[in-house]
Amino acid sequence: MSCRSRLIPVLRRAIVPSLKRSGITANPSRCAARCISSSAQRRFQESGIRGVKYTTDSYPEIKRDSRFSQITKEHVDYFKELLGKESALVDGVTAGATEDDLEPFNSDWMRKYRGHCRLVLKPASTEEVSKILKYCNENTLAVVPQGGNTGLVGGSVPVFDEIVVSTSRMNQIRFFDEVSGVLVADAGVVLEVADQYLAEKGYIFPLDLGAKGSCHIGGNVSTNAGGLRLLRYGSLHGTVLGIEAVLPNGTILDDLSRLRKNNTGYDLKQLFIGGEGTIGMITAVSIHCPQRSKAINVAFLGLESYEKLQQTFKEAKTQLGEILSAFELMDSQSQDIFHKVKENKRPLEGEHPFYCLIETSGSNSEHDSEKLEKFLEDVMTKELVTDGVVAENETQLRSLWSQREGITETIGHWGGVYKYDVSIPIKDMYKLVEDTRKRLEDAGLKGESDEYPVVDVVGYGHMGDSNLHLNIAVRRYDKEVEAALEPFVYEWISERNGSISAEHGLGIAKKKYIGYSRNETTVGLMKQIKNLYDPNGIMNPYKYI
Amino acid sequence: MSCRSRLIPVLRRAIVPSLKRSGITANPSRCAARCISSSAQRRFQESGIRGVKYTTDSYPEIKRDSRFSQITKEHVDYFKELLGKESALVDGVTAGATEDDLEPFNSDWMRKYRGHCRLVLKPASTEEVSKILKYCNENTLAVVPQGGNTGLVGGSVPVFDEIVVSTSRMNQIRFFDEVSGVLVADAGVVLEVADQYLAEKGYIFPLDLGAKGSCHIGGNVSTNAGGLRLLRYGSLHGTVLGIEAVLPNGTILDDLSRLRKNNTGYDLKQLFIGGEGTIGMITAVSIHCPQRSKAINVAFLGLESYEKLQQTFKEAKTQLGEILSAFELMDSQSQDIFHKVKENKRPLEGEHPFYCLIETSGSNSEHDSEKLEKFLEDVMTKELVTDGVVAENETQLRSLWSQREGITETIGHWGGVYKYDVSIPIKDMYKLVEDTRKRLEDAGLKGESDEYPVVDVVGYGHMGDSNLHLNIAVRRYDKEVEAALEPFVYEWISERNGSISAEHGLGIAKKKYIGYSRNETTVGLMKQIKNLYDPNGIMNPYKYI
Repeated sequence: MSCRSRLIPVLRRAIVPSLKRSGITANPSRCAARCISSSAQRRFQESGIRGVKYTTDSYPEIKRDSRFSQITKEHVDYFKELLGKESALVDGVTAGATEDDLEPFNSDWMRKYRGHCRLVLKPASTEEVSKILKYCNENTLAVVPQGGNTGLVGGSVPVFDEIVVSTSRMNQIRFFDEVSGVLVADAGVVLEVADQYLAEKGYIFPLDLGAKGSCHIGGNVSTNAGGLRLLRYGSLHGTVLGIEAVLPNGTILDDLSRLRKNNTGYDLKQLFIGGEGTIGMITAVSIHCPQRSKAINVAFLGLESYEKLQQTFKEAKTQLGEILSAFELMDSQSQDIFHKVKENKRPLEGEHPFYCLIETSGSNSEHDSEKLEKFLEDVMTKELVTDGVVAENETQLRSLWSQREGITETIGHWGGVYKYDVSIPIKDMYKLVEDTRKRLEDAGLKGESDEYPVVDVVGYGHMGDSNLHLNIAVRRYDKEVEAALEPFVYEWISERNGSISAEHGLGIAKKKYIGYSRNETTVGLMKQIKNLYDPNGIMNPYKYI
Repeated sequence: MSCRSRLIPVLRRAIVPSLKRSGITANPSRCAARCISSSAQRRFQESGIRGVKYTTDSYPEIKRDSRFSQITKEHVDYFKELLGKESALVDGVTAGATEDDLEPFNSDWMRKYRGHCRLVLKPASTEEVSKILKYCNENTLAVVPQGGNTGLVGGSVPVFDEIVVSTSRMNQIRFFDEVSGVLVADAGVVLEVADQYLAEKGYIFPLDLGAKGSCHIGGNVSTNAGGLRLLRYGSLHGTVLGIEAVLPNGTILDDLSRLRKNNTGYDLKQLFIGGEGTIGMITAVSIHCPQRSKAINVAFLGLESYEKLQQTFKEAKTQLGEILSAFELMDSQSQDIFHKVKENKRPLEGEHPFYCLIETSGSNSEHDSEKLEKFLEDVMTKELVTDGVVAENETQLRSLWSQREGITETIGHWGGVYKYDVSIPIKDMYKLVEDTRKRLEDAGLKGESDEYPVVDVVGYGHMGDSNLHLNIAVRRYDKEVEAALEPFVYEWISERNGSISAEHGLGIAKKKYIGYSRNETTVGLMKQIKNLYDPNGIMNPYKYI
């Protein structure tokens, strides 16, 4: 304890003088808590794709559904006539589209999933989508709706020869109301484009994620993307006011309400939010956008224990209240890896078992800085926080964020990563990392030298949303490691009523594990819904539930 | 313009010195924007109920569904044995429960709807609810789930002899996490009880409405209640994390997730939020509760036009940003009526075509006051606001709120009110009031003397949510007035893609008008859902869709 009290004045000097009082303008290009970094996306775009294993090889147990027809020239002719121009199709059935032409639609950016699709359709209107789906339904042709194809669970790429229906040509902003902040836009509008459009009007898209430069808002809504702004603005189930979607039989569900309050019957749109394109295809979205904050502050803190981290989070909620916009957790292992790979100067002197990044955003930078300063003094006085710094300018702000954002990139440095995106009640959240680490150590799988497959087990994530990213950095993919991890991790989560997919969705990756987060009754009710809307099962088959 | 510029210094004096700098503690008993005032509820409780017309008389076109069985002694015996004790039933079938005993369950507080129910069941657990519904389903006995019975559209009272299943004995708070703010509670917990429990822990229930002293949170979620805090905390579709519900066949949907992020399949709970008990009965709720604000400020402003009111709202959103917690609209007619009935001193000198009430709530009263002061100076300088006052203490705060809250009570002073709770894109919102007023004037129905049925047409409501309460104060209910109002009002709303029910729901009152807010396709899809979950139609029949 004497050691601690010695530290407090040191901390005061470290933190308080560096408080930025003049405010930092929010920069729309800063992507927080990235799940997909832009550089990783670039690497994918620049690299070849031939090395990617087919999903049918990775999942040999999945067989092509014999109900689905093979695509014929007659089918393609129908689509050609419907869409009117060559550029609206990528046709590997009757025309000369090559494997390279089709690969961006067949493979995901992580190079984990790869389908055998030979036909991509790019409708330009909801009516065209309607005609496509109706035709596919009548001819039992399987379909995969695809937006920016930035998903993490293989949900947006085909497995066999499903037809990809891309939203890329449906990219118009249809409406914005500067008084209410309601935006209506086509499903194919890129998230960053929408956010930049809103920035010019003083508004913000209530969702932010690393793939914002590529992902489509229709895809975001279809997968109920979480991301960083959820802590502040809530989930898409609350912010999305309406959707326009096409059902498999061609029916257009026109529910593009621009109203925050509308209690007239079942809120059907909610089934499509997070429905991952399995009961219909979202063609447009109406969403309530909040005011953009004028001031942003970021603090980076070191802490002694997860217990103190929880208490600090509670204090941040109480004291920073309405301006708290991010509370991100990083353990020492994640920061060690980042440091080893990047060889950067650490933001704090010394090492700490836990770190957190706190962001505030508000309408008055002086007020926000004062609140943050007072909060930091308080958590130091209470000895919850051991050390900390506050960004003084935009460069420092980005640098602090990179300590959190850069983990995803650096974690794969030794060869590979086993990644779990989970949600667990906050009290138990970090214990999963400890238990997993111990398990791999006890199994003799983790060590310093090359003979051990596991480099380290790290935990980081959106503490504010009880959303943990459990990552196991490995030197090579290894059956023994896999056997130690699964079903252990899923069982562990299930016992604590956690979720095996917090924000990434089910796709093909977690289809078979849904039982760990949902009971049989609930899964049964979900299947009822699927059968009700898509009795022929043509929408995004082999995935989800 | 010269007149206006003369006013500005006067206003500055009026507003700025009165700014409360020391902050006002949030008082949990203050109910904002009440739809049902406590005194109105008291009057109902104290008065007899024999004068209330049966719904079957008001709606002679509704016939008892012949599929439903009559309740027999055998049925009652089953329920008696199941529930175990006398007090868990109000039995007018085999025991001596009188009409008076049954009336609180048969009638609504507005004395508008009255059913013929002879059996009320008060289960104490989810399992008991499950057994009740399973039995009712197998014996085709119709059921009305009932919470606090504070609804405004007749949704929670029976029409014929449906069995009332009350949540009143399911009233335990099951869980609260002081770090995440997640509350899990039985459906029958009274909203105010939940809010007071949370207040002690520094949290707030993200919903507030006038009936909070009586309404049950299960009913709130079933009707997707809106209320005042929606502007700040969003709708229940975003804040509710999970529900436990019993389906008509007795299946328990156990989806009491305590997680903010959980992307594992269709979000089925959303169908029950606002489902008005037509596909199942909610027995418990898990909800994310925000931090309670320490400081509250209220300003009351007079404005010259609806155009300026819209601009003021936009400025409030920009400048007050994260601390804005209410923006309420009142027209001069609503304030005239309030003033005439209450004979109070008006908050502002002179009269103004429009008024608004702005509330801020935040974590730092000095900061909040400073923001509010700056905002008020700005809107005065820009000549958007003509006059205004700011509450200096709790009494003034309540007094200003009463100008908004008291409208509902005073509007019926002359004999009756035609009430519409609607949502319309903000730009057009007030025009509905003007057009309705003109229509009634043109028809010679509105005037000063007793020969005219209509006293006045007023508009007020939650401007921040585009939610208008259009009220027509009348001296007597009159067929000519009704013919002038309907379907005119609904058609007007429909043409502007508004909602005929913003926050009150459909119940029996608006069942037949849903077509004005939802197209045939959507209503058809809703009916599919109803049939899927409740094929025998036993849940809350004759209502909703």
